[in-house]
Amino acid sequence: MSFAATILTLYPEMFPGPLGISLAGKALERGDWTCETVQIRDFATDKHRTVDDTPAGGGAGMVLKADILGAAVDHVVNAQSAGGTASIPILAMTPRGKPITQERIRELAAGPGVTILCGRFEGFDERLFEARPQIEQVSLGDVVLSGGETAAIAILDACIRLLPGVMGAASSGTEESFEEGLLEYPQYTRPFEWEGRTIPEVLRSGDHAKIAAWRKARSEDDTRLRRPDLWERYSDARDQSASGARRKKKDMDQ
Amino acid sequence: MSFAATILTLYPEMFPGPLGISLAGKALERGDWTCETVQIRDFATDKHRTVDDTPAGGGAGMVLKADILGAAVDHVVNAQSAGGTASIPILAMTPRGKPITQERIRELAAGPGVTILCGRFEGFDERLFEARPQIEQVSLGDVVLSGGETAAIAILDACIRLLPGVMGAASSGTEESFEEGLLEYPQYTRPFEWEGRTIPEVLRSGDHAKIAAWRKARSEDDTRLRRPDLWERYSDARDQSASGARRKKKDMDQ
Repeated sequence: MSFAATILTLYPEMFPGPLGISLAGKALERGDWTCETVQIRDFATDKHRTVDDTPAGGGAGMVLKADILGAAVDHVVNAQSAGGTASIPILAMTPRGKPITQERIRELAAGPGVTILCGRFEGFDERLFEARPQIEQVSLGDVVLSGGETAAIAILDACIRLLPGVMGAASSGTEESFEEGLLEYPQYTRPFEWEGRTIPEVLRSGDHAKIAAWRKARSEDDTRLRRPDLWERYSDARDQSASGARRKKKDMDQ
Repeated sequence: MSFAATILTLYPEMFPGPLGISLAGKALERGDWTCETVQIRDFATDKHRTVDDTPAGGGAGMVLKADILGAAVDHVVNAQSAGGTASIPILAMTPRGKPITQERIRELAAGPGVTILCGRFEGFDERLFEARPQIEQVSLGDVVLSGGETAAIAILDACIRLLPGVMGAASSGTEESFEEGLLEYPQYTRPFEWEGRTIPEVLRSGDHAKIAAWRKARSEDDTRLRRPDLWERYSDARDQSASGARRKKKDMDQ
């Protein structure tokens, strides 16, 4: 089964773009995933093919119309349902959305596919999300893009690399940043010495337990220093599981 | 002066990609920005043009070599310096990096350009960052990509839309998500009624003060509900500035 990516956009020519090259491109050629675009403008109802209008209440820019977007989303959902596809999650890219996590990426990659709605201009008429609550509003990071397309490309990239066979068995993607709520440890490779800097001795010891302990400690150190937000969640979860284990031991001791 | 984007990558054919289309594409044609790619492989020193090697200490995947990346970065920095360009920030895209913010995007967009180093595989030999401390390690969001290229495209997109003339004066980008530490308010546009849902009455009142107050309240509500992390920072800053104002008033009263 191919992973079915469907992108609703005003710029279908942006896809697959960089995803047609390298790892994702080879996976596309093999049929590990499919890339379908839907032109939002095809759902406009006037002769000018209008998709946007000025913001109610005033302000700069243009807002994508709920009636046009609703029709476009319904079309995709109905076509998927008629094709017998299992229900495919729908994401709308917006800086107002929930920041996407690697956990959600893993869920998406394990499913039948993803449909991504790309905004432009000042964003979507909010009633779209009230009337179609199955649409997940997600953001990629705390930056504002010219449209959802470049965010969609990054999200698809993150999903595709996790599809079976894409990275190969050697690189399962389970020992990397965010997988245990930590940043990945730093990496080193040959040459042993470069500009007077050597690879840490422990990594050359051949002692797997010592290497694993060093890497875990570096992951924890770097997460604490670089990402206090992740560190707080990680250490809360660790403390809770430790106190759970103590409780359990106490129960058993009684 | 054009904004100079330089991308160090193993896949130069990914650029400008989606940035050659629409808003960014028109800006590229006009010369508002330039897009130069540097093939990292050109700095390999053996006949196989090797750029990576196995991780010291074991593990899956391959690590990009510090000696090759160091030479590639030095080449770009020297060429820019010889060309008389002011010092251009260098970002390395890595999930171990600091999450990029809209504030940093604004700083970059106001400067002479940006150089972006795109990793692949298991990432960079850490010594690169020790030996070239001017390289900023940044991440786009908490997801793992197949390489830095798709993140670089999103970051360039965010910068380019802010360049003078790109969005036009009507849409200065100052009233949008993250600009005051809040998410943007929800938007609405015609039709007035869609699927039984109407545009909020206040937005049709023509009362600009009331509209501004409603939008501010919705921005605050949505930020509190959707982004407790942003909300915490925002309300801390607000409380501090309020207590500062009280202190100032007290000083003046005395």
